[in-house]
Amino acid sequence: MSASRVHAVIMAGGSGTRFWPASRERFPKQFLPLGSDPRESLLAATVRRVSPIVANDRVWIATGAHLREPTFAALPQIPKVNILAEPVARNTAPCVGWATWTIANSDPDALVMVLPSDSYVTDEPGFRQVAERALDAASKGYLVTVGIVPTRPETGYGYIELGDAIGDGVRRVARFVEKPNRQVAESYLAGGAHLWNAGMFFFTARAMKEAIATHLPALKECLDAVFAEGGGDSAVAKHFPTMPKISIDNGVMEKAANIAVVPGDFGWNDVGSWESAWDLATRDVSGNALPQGSVAIDAERNLVREMGAVAGKRVYALVGVSDLVVVETDDAVLILPRARAQDVRLVVEQLKVRGQGRT
Amino acid sequence: MSASRVHAVIMAGGSGTRFWPASRERFPKQFLPLGSDPRESLLAATVRRVSPIVANDRVWIATGAHLREPTFAALPQIPKVNILAEPVARNTAPCVGWATWTIANSDPDALVMVLPSDSYVTDEPGFRQVAERALDAASKGYLVTVGIVPTRPETGYGYIELGDAIGDGVRRVARFVEKPNRQVAESYLAGGAHLWNAGMFFFTARAMKEAIATHLPALKECLDAVFAEGGGDSAVAKHFPTMPKISIDNGVMEKAANIAVVPGDFGWNDVGSWESAWDLATRDVSGNALPQGSVAIDAERNLVREMGAVAGKRVYALVGVSDLVVVETDDAVLILPRARAQDVRLVVEQLKVRGQGRT
Repeated sequence: MSASRVHAVIMAGGSGTRFWPASRERFPKQFLPLGSDPRESLLAATVRRVSPIVANDRVWIATGAHLREPTFAALPQIPKVNILAEPVARNTAPCVGWATWTIANSDPDALVMVLPSDSYVTDEPGFRQVAERALDAASKGYLVTVGIVPTRPETGYGYIELGDAIGDGVRRVARFVEKPNRQVAESYLAGGAHLWNAGMFFFTARAMKEAIATHLPALKECLDAVFAEGGGDSAVAKHFPTMPKISIDNGVMEKAANIAVVPGDFGWNDVGSWESAWDLATRDVSGNALPQGSVAIDAERNLVREMGAVAGKRVYALVGVSDLVVVETDDAVLILPRARAQDVRLVVEQLKVRGQGRT
Repeated sequence: MSASRVHAVIMAGGSGTRFWPASRERFPKQFLPLGSDPRESLLAATVRRVSPIVANDRVWIATGAHLREPTFAALPQIPKVNILAEPVARNTAPCVGWATWTIANSDPDALVMVLPSDSYVTDEPGFRQVAERALDAASKGYLVTVGIVPTRPETGYGYIELGDAIGDGVRRVARFVEKPNRQVAESYLAGGAHLWNAGMFFFTARAMKEAIATHLPALKECLDAVFAEGGGDSAVAKHFPTMPKISIDNGVMEKAANIAVVPGDFGWNDVGSWESAWDLATRDVSGNALPQGSVAIDAERNLVREMGAVAGKRVYALVGVSDLVVVETDDAVLILPRARAQDVRLVVEQLKVRGQGRT
């Protein structure tokens, strides 16, 4: 494997309001500093995490047209031509396909890793070790995924069932499993044969092109047409809306035969809520993650985050409150117990009904 | 009693940080909207409360030199010459004395009511009825105070023990009592012969001048000197610092013989903490007092107040939190349970030690 031929495709589209009021429909989670460093966005952390093994000009950001500007702003070190801004969202198969065709255009045998932009990793060397192993398997023609070793009976993720060993730390995939119920999730955790599907994929451009040609021929036709017409913005705008709306998991990974999985255990976190953000945050001895200069008296395990023009200007004083999430932006303030972090959606729903924006 | 001769002296000096971060050493409590209307300061409410019985040009505001500007700003309807800004704080006797001498200068028999600026009254007609009764007693030569009928065994106030009846709703004062302990306070509440001293005084200018001459002759000398020198700012600046530092209660009321008290029960509240502010605030069916447009889900009995440039710009979303006080200003945010409202002082102490301002 030649490191000079490794490309990274960071999936940075999507929308979401689980981190309201910091995240908005047009400013989703990946732009927020939800990891341990309150100054680094998840997206920037994802790029930094792969930087020891992928040069900036081989980092591609797959995002939506509406997120082009914040993406430029978040990643000044990435060439602007490497931002692949989809004119419309068509799920992940067209997204991975477009990136693959783009990379293959200059290097058909390039190694590609596809990574989500909105998860977090605490053990970065551990992650890179697993990525190198996955790239090595990919170089042998496999479409490789990483399976996260479960730490709890999670019912919110898909699972990957391990098959036979292919090589050192590389296994066949017996099957992909949809989100299980609690009982099944507990048996998975006990059994040790099921890993979390974290949405990371490793392959050669050639192998993915072949897999798409085989399993999603309509998508292949569209992508070929884009590049037959020069691959520019107008060709993308013309053909993207007609591409099949399907995930790369359902469209390719679950159907292809040459699938492999590399188990990984590197502190992966999908950062699903403000609760996770507290979990990842750098905390003081009282378990608080507060802006610098805050005063905490009889206050424990609180998360306070501020964004926008108000940030850095105010002293926060918490007295006798614990396990709270407080988020302050220029146009909204959220206060709720950490244990109710999922209920941010109730607020967003009310605001949507009200129709006065701020979602 | 001729209404045209009634003057009001509003005591609006002092400092205090019980309402931090809204109140500051140089922006004390009377400037805050802590009553039922979140747009009206306690000071403005005090002036409005007496406006049916006292014309604006007979309203005098006794304050400190450092508070001159915010006082002008809070009371545009009051002539600027009526703001008596003390060059240094010398407690309330010099303050009442200066106002009395000033008023007596143009009308020696004027009726004067002295009122604190930082308490609140919910029954305004009831207050005015008591004030009229007190003024009537004052017109007969008494130095009159109002005693608030206790509603709880409060240990934080001084009490007035009722003496014989003088007239309808007017009693002699048997004695003034310092803050009692809990047991004594409970006996006062049960006994019915003790009222709260709310710091309101009613007298003719002539009677108060005589009382000061008798009980605080040194103060009389200073005040006479001020007016012998024209009564202007330089005369005040020269003599004020030498005036005896004593309260009008200790210096005059507790010593004079012609003291009367009018019992009153008009929803008086000394607005001692954010807890009191919640108590007075206009609240919704869930007991919340929140800025307009807030979202409250499973959230009850919270008080949210915002001041400064951040005010009115943000939507507050409270989920699953109850009995909290949240105060937001341009440079500070306070979050604490209502029941711990007194502990604001702990925050202010920490900030003072830190020495980075904001107190």
